[in-house]
Amino acid sequence: MTGIFEAIESNVRSYCRSFPTVFRTARGARLVDEQGRAYIDFLSGAGTLNYGHNDPRIKRHLLDYVASDGVVHGLDMFTTAKRTFLEAFSSLVLEPRRLSYKVQFTGPTGANAVEAALKVARNATGRSNVVAFTNAFHGVTLGAVAATGNAHYRSAAGLPLRGTTFAPYDGYLGPGIDTTVYLDRLLSDRGSGVDEPAAVIVETVQGEGGINVASAQWLRALQQVCRRHGALLIVDDIQAGCGRTGPFFSFEAAGFVPDIVTLSKSLSGYGLPFSIVLLRPELDQWKPGEHNGTFRGHNLAFVTATAALTEYWTDDALTRDVARKGAQARAALEAMARECDEEDLVVRGRGLMLGLDCGDGALAGRICASAFTRGLLIERSGAEDEVVKLLTPLTIPDDDLAEGLRILGTCVREQVRSGAAARVAGGVR
Amino acid sequence: MTGIFEAIESNVRSYCRSFPTVFRTARGARLVDEQGRAYIDFLSGAGTLNYGHNDPRIKRHLLDYVASDGVVHGLDMFTTAKRTFLEAFSSLVLEPRRLSYKVQFTGPTGANAVEAALKVARNATGRSNVVAFTNAFHGVTLGAVAATGNAHYRSAAGLPLRGTTFAPYDGYLGPGIDTTVYLDRLLSDRGSGVDEPAAVIVETVQGEGGINVASAQWLRALQQVCRRHGALLIVDDIQAGCGRTGPFFSFEAAGFVPDIVTLSKSLSGYGLPFSIVLLRPELDQWKPGEHNGTFRGHNLAFVTATAALTEYWTDDALTRDVARKGAQARAALEAMARECDEEDLVVRGRGLMLGLDCGDGALAGRICASAFTRGLLIERSGAEDEVVKLLTPLTIPDDDLAEGLRILGTCVREQVRSGAAARVAGGVR
Amino acid sequence: MTGIFEAIESNVRSYCRSFPTVFRTARGARLVDEQGRAYIDFLSGAGTLNYGHNDPRIKRHLLDYVASDGVVHGLDMFTTAKRTFLEAFSSLVLEPRRLSYKVQFTGPTGANAVEAALKVARNATGRSNVVAFTNAFHGVTLGAVAATGNAHYRSAAGLPLRGTTFAPYDGYLGPGIDTTVYLDRLLSDRGSGVDEPAAVIVETVQGEGGINVASAQWLRALQQVCRRHGALLIVDDIQAGCGRTGPFFSFEAAGFVPDIVTLSKSLSGYGLPFSIVLLRPELDQWKPGEHNGTFRGHNLAFVTATAALTEYWTDDALTRDVARKGAQARAALEAMARECDEEDLVVRGRGLMLGLDCGDGALAGRICASAFTRGLLIERSGAEDEVVKLLTPLTIPDDDLAEGLRILGTCVREQVRSGAAARVAGGVR
Amino acid sequence: MTGIFEAIESNVRSYCRSFPTVFRTARGARLVDEQGRAYIDFLSGAGTLNYGHNDPRIKRHLLDYVASDGVVHGLDMFTTAKRTFLEAFSSLVLEPRRLSYKVQFTGPTGANAVEAALKVARNATGRSNVVAFTNAFHGVTLGAVAATGNAHYRSAAGLPLRGTTFAPYDGYLGPGIDTTVYLDRLLSDRGSGVDEPAAVIVETVQGEGGINVASAQWLRALQQVCRRHGALLIVDDIQAGCGRTGPFFSFEAAGFVPDIVTLSKSLSGYGLPFSIVLLRPELDQWKPGEHNGTFRGHNLAFVTATAALTEYWTDDALTRDVARKGAQARAALEAMARECDEEDLVVRGRGLMLGLDCGDGALAGRICASAFTRGLLIERSGAEDEVVKLLTPLTIPDDDLAEGLRILGTCVREQVRSGAAARVAGGVR
Repeated sequence: MTGIFEAIESNVRSYCRSFPTVFRTARGARLVDEQGRAYIDFLSGAGTLNYGHNDPRIKRHLLDYVASDGVVHGLDMFTTAKRTFLEAFSSLVLEPRRLSYKVQFTGPTGANAVEAALKVARNATGRSNVVAFTNAFHGVTLGAVAATGNAHYRSAAGLPLRGTTFAPYDGYLGPGIDTTVYLDRLLSDRGSGVDEPAAVIVETVQGEGGINVASAQWLRALQQVCRRHGALLIVDDIQAGCGRTGPFFSFEAAGFVPDIVTLSKSLSGYGLPFSIVLLRPELDQWKPGEHNGTFRGHNLAFVTATAALTEYWTDDALTRDVARKGAQARAALEAMARECDEEDLVVRGRGLMLGLDCGDGALAGRICASAFTRGLLIERSGAEDEVVKLLTPLTIPDDDLAEGLRILGTCVREQVRSGAAARVAGGVR
Repeated sequence: MTGIFEAIESNVRSYCRSFPTVFRTARGARLVDEQGRAYIDFLSGAGTLNYGHNDPRIKRHLLDYVASDGVVHGLDMFTTAKRTFLEAFSSLVLEPRRLSYKVQFTGPTGANAVEAALKVARNATGRSNVVAFTNAFHGVTLGAVAATGNAHYRSAAGLPLRGTTFAPYDGYLGPGIDTTVYLDRLLSDRGSGVDEPAAVIVETVQGEGGINVASAQWLRALQQVCRRHGALLIVDDIQAGCGRTGPFFSFEAAGFVPDIVTLSKSLSGYGLPFSIVLLRPELDQWKPGEHNGTFRGHNLAFVTATAALTEYWTDDALTRDVARKGAQARAALEAMARECDEEDLVVRGRGLMLGLDCGDGALAGRICASAFTRGLLIERSGAEDEVVKLLTPLTIPDDDLAEGLRILGTCVREQVRSGAAARVAGGVR
Repeated sequence: MTGIFEAIESNVRSYCRSFPTVFRTARGARLVDEQGRAYIDFLSGAGTLNYGHNDPRIKRHLLDYVASDGVVHGLDMFTTAKRTFLEAFSSLVLEPRRLSYKVQFTGPTGANAVEAALKVARNATGRSNVVAFTNAFHGVTLGAVAATGNAHYRSAAGLPLRGTTFAPYDGYLGPGIDTTVYLDRLLSDRGSGVDEPAAVIVETVQGEGGINVASAQWLRALQQVCRRHGALLIVDDIQAGCGRTGPFFSFEAAGFVPDIVTLSKSLSGYGLPFSIVLLRPELDQWKPGEHNGTFRGHNLAFVTATAALTEYWTDDALTRDVARKGAQARAALEAMARECDEEDLVVRGRGLMLGLDCGDGALAGRICASAFTRGLLIERSGAEDEVVKLLTPLTIPDDDLAEGLRILGTCVREQVRSGAAARVAGGVR
Repeated sequence: MTGIFEAIESNVRSYCRSFPTVFRTARGARLVDEQGRAYIDFLSGAGTLNYGHNDPRIKRHLLDYVASDGVVHGLDMFTTAKRTFLEAFSSLVLEPRRLSYKVQFTGPTGANAVEAALKVARNATGRSNVVAFTNAFHGVTLGAVAATGNAHYRSAAGLPLRGTTFAPYDGYLGPGIDTTVYLDRLLSDRGSGVDEPAAVIVETVQGEGGINVASAQWLRALQQVCRRHGALLIVDDIQAGCGRTGPFFSFEAAGFVPDIVTLSKSLSGYGLPFSIVLLRPELDQWKPGEHNGTFRGHNLAFVTATAALTEYWTDDALTRDVARKGAQARAALEAMARECDEEDLVVRGRGLMLGLDCGDGALAGRICASAFTRGLLIERSGAEDEVVKLLTPLTIPDDDLAEGLRILGTCVREQVRSGAAARVAGGVR
């Protein structure tokens, strides 16, 4: 059944090892494999499917556009589809939030957007260093992986990484210690060995890093530190943006405006490759074509992204729905943590970007594996894969959410107890 | 008409400056703008549209798949669409050519495939240096742009580039000098300052570098040099592959097998983002997920790529057609060069990857600008944008090819003569 | 008088700007300029003249050796002078302390010794990262300056620096925070972005960094962190070694043995260029000549270094004398700090490596300038040049020490008061 | 006899392996070991002892200065000894040659001077790349070794090297090919992948690289290339300078003036560590102390360097003597090459910097080993240690020169013949 994959697909394949079946169709929050078995999706393409699989309201636009021979591939030529997207993005996203960014279409991967953001920051400031945070994930191309904390990716880079300094994320030095104060100290002290940074790049919630949440206050303090030291503030909103935490941008609630923002993943609304960088206009110092890429004009993504904006972002219904479902999911996770007090399970997150930190990659792995056998797709993150990560479609039907949480609760309880039983039997942990 | 673009699209936009109109639809070798004006496409998305725009035979599969709620975004999970692609790629591409590569799905940009190829080469050999060639183009992310020759891209990187040594491409030291001998000397001489390379990365025809063609003999000699010095040979077939020079791979005719191959651009057959790396099985030393990316499972591209293979690569009809049309186009270019002997115009290329080297970016620019006003899209390449680059769809109808060549010939003659006249009037060049 | 200097000596000249006179002779703790004016030396060649200027007991050996046509320059050939040095160093320094280091003769600068130490650490571990500390100074060649904290030197490097991660030195995060715990956390967390280090390089007292003192407990904890993470511990004892803090090595009292030690500055005993690296024998994996240098066999330095060891290190008299004079000097500095409570003056240091932190580079500068006019040479260190640094010869006569301290006290009081008066007059600081 | 060396000196020791005895005294061109055996010195401290060992005319000044308690170590404070050196260097070296350089005292190793030169070039131009040449040797600290060609040193660096591009030295591409034309092409072609260089660093005769000689014409062409591309020209005259090729600077005869010059080795005249960088005044953009070092004010070296200049460089006697002895030595080497036509021995060099290229490191090694047993010190260079390198003191007595050449001739003939005989016996080479 999976013969050709094992025969010729590279060993680098990964998620298929956690979910060993072959999927055929998908709709909303459900995937169906070729045996006809349905799975509830609490993974959402690692945050790429905020509107679920094959959202019918978006699909319609896609089919019409393809059928009408709309331009599909346009490099960075002007097309009507690109114009429509820019108009929608401007009127539905930027203007209501009083944001005046320029929009750069990059190669359609998150890493490519990050690479472009780092380039423009370095060139605009004439500095080479960039501050990134412990447990950050910004992609695996050479420029992006240098800002990514995880040794798994770093050690695969093939070259020693450079050009970045890692600072402790909010909470990393323990409760009560404001890590922006330490960063400010490092940047103020001419003897600290930390070169003046072109930029600080931050995720407001670290997805791959283990669902670590930065407080609004910390983020605002971070922006103050950046301003004090002439560094640009880049918010990498690739996973946390597009409504994942509730508002369109994850930083809206925190009351500050980044200098540069990267978006990708759910931006196309349909799982299509698409990435952009938003720049304060004075930073848009690019010369024509300096950062290029064959697929920076992926018009099908323009069409679906426009549809996603017009279908979901003309009012605050989705944002409120995320808040409601997020609260429900968090309550369920907290109940699991309370019930399973044999382990120190910790719930973290914002909106529908939630994590159950099991403190232990093995336990988290058993929970996810068990969930798969019961028809739930859910994955882990964190440096030791110790956090069960809940990333449902934002549009998940209430029933599916409840059913998924019920399955997850069963798996958590079962695995915590079997672990505890095994420890009792073994006499040691 | 282009207001929103000028208002908020980043200055990095580029092709739209050469082709200042807004395109709406496209089919085969023709694009139509929103005023209804049609343009013959001699650019083909910089080699991404080998089967033309919206090929109806491929489109059908795409529409069916979308309509049936096939999985669109699947990270690197197994899907039926991915299996079908792997089976078709194996049976129609690899097996008939007795190639036993493993297939790695990377982020869907060419640069991402190049980054993965360089990583795997460095990790497999434990070496850090990579040899690239003068006028190479391999992308603009930090790892890829270090192997790209053009100062326009290099100087925008924001950091000094490293990890690469540039060697002269075939012909770079003039006729009669085999530059692989020089490379062999550098690698044999322990005093040369050139560190042992993990890999040599080469395009068999340099597209962005000005349609420079490596001979079969040179390529075979290059492989011998690589073997002698324990370096892997990577062919970047992103622009020259997928039939652009005739055969599926650009290196087939040369009689050697690379260790690693990158493919992208026309691989999806429909202009959709899609990239893969082909690896000799013993090089597939990746650990799961070491090189990842959100869009490495872009199933629509699997579907269209499969359709392209089954529609176009079950026999050698396309390869023969490319040879025929390529000969026709080359003859036309050579006629232009002969007619315009005021300038030293040089024709280069293989298959339907052809260039008219004008020796002068300004002249080439005037030719392309003039072509646009006459309804022909054609662009330039080379370090000084001095080469008019002909990259028609491989499936271009004979009439469109003839018409495009006719327009091009008119523009070449006109611009060469007006340049000559201007020089006479000005008394100096 | 200084015409030729101003005419043709590079602007990089530095100490001569603080001490604008031309010195002719020197003996013990006194320098005499060409006008015959004597100065007490509280600078000691930045720690190079622990035995004072032209110590007569060492001088005798030097004169005899030169007169007898002993080999002066011997590359790294065997000479009787080198043998005698190795025997003395072994019997008087290594054996009594039960140290079994191999001795590497490097180029005769401290930076060269640091470069060699970092190379051997990287090669022995196969890792590229090195942890250095805030406010560290290890030299200004490209490898060494990457481990140096001060932006003044870093920004002059001409290339972005790499291969180092800076961690907070003892006390950097405030009292009560053990910064080795933070370092341990960073190295234990696979998501921290801090790559596994080949080595941690540390000064037990940071001389150029502002006379910051690491506690014995912190140093021992640091060694535990190193062991836990497979990193070598390098003590850069170039300024703090050779008795400056009392014992021969600055780390003796702390109860641990570094894997690698660098020595230079006072090693020759007479101000002659000389540097060595001490290596645990199993780390001595050098191939012959891999790290070379024309002057690694400076036999005059072997002769004077041997004399310094035999004259000063056959018993603990010097160590006890340093303790006695250090206590005296510290008491005097603390009295100054107490008297001048308009400013928050802080005394730090160990042995005869003491600092008066003025919290303000301008005040410290005025104190030193004033001292010079009164016949005392003393300099500043710290990121803002805010620390008046006391580095007398260890052999300074008691009268000279007392006289120098008296002058310094006068200058401190005078400058603190004139600063306070100026602030009152100006109404603001 | 060599017990302590083998017991505790690092394995990095090197020359002592070729010359396994312990030297005690030296005078002129002769070293004497502790058994009283004398050796003629054709190595001269790898070019450090141009005036021989312990030149009595220089020694006198050294003894007087030490005896009189002249300042020995002065950081970069003004001293009378430094002034006297600057005055002598200005009046005897710079002024007669109409050179208006500023003089920078660096750490007293050649590598340190090279590091300073590269820094100032990068900072002055704002560029990071530096062009170095095949088989260049500029030292082994991290910045310098990046410009050094030999893999032996490069692979020991512990980090991938960067910031340099290697170009073919004069003659590297064979006779009749002007490699400056190739370099000019690379720098003119914006697609070459060679970033605009801050500087080109060159040895006019490559000592460690195998006594490769650049022609005057090539050097002048190189300067033209530098000017055309805004790159500074650095001549590393550390080994070839101070009269080694005849004139004080090795570039004098070639008719051009470098922008930056590094000097060391024989500069002190007595084998003492000493290095300077000469800078065109407008390049002297250092801020005070940006490049520092404990031993940049080594006053004994100032004294001996001054003596060397006043004793040897007030007229052209030494230059003429070098020409005469160089011609004699070259004639002798050429006679050896002619006599031993079983091997393709090649003589190269200028002045008293001569090489006998044996084409084979083993043969060259046997020759030098055999010479040692006969009382002649001579060493090898080149990437494979294939060149017997003749670097006698410039002041070598005629008798010693003749005797050394006689021994060398015997060894060459003997080893060539025994090699030939062995080949005949073995039937193969």
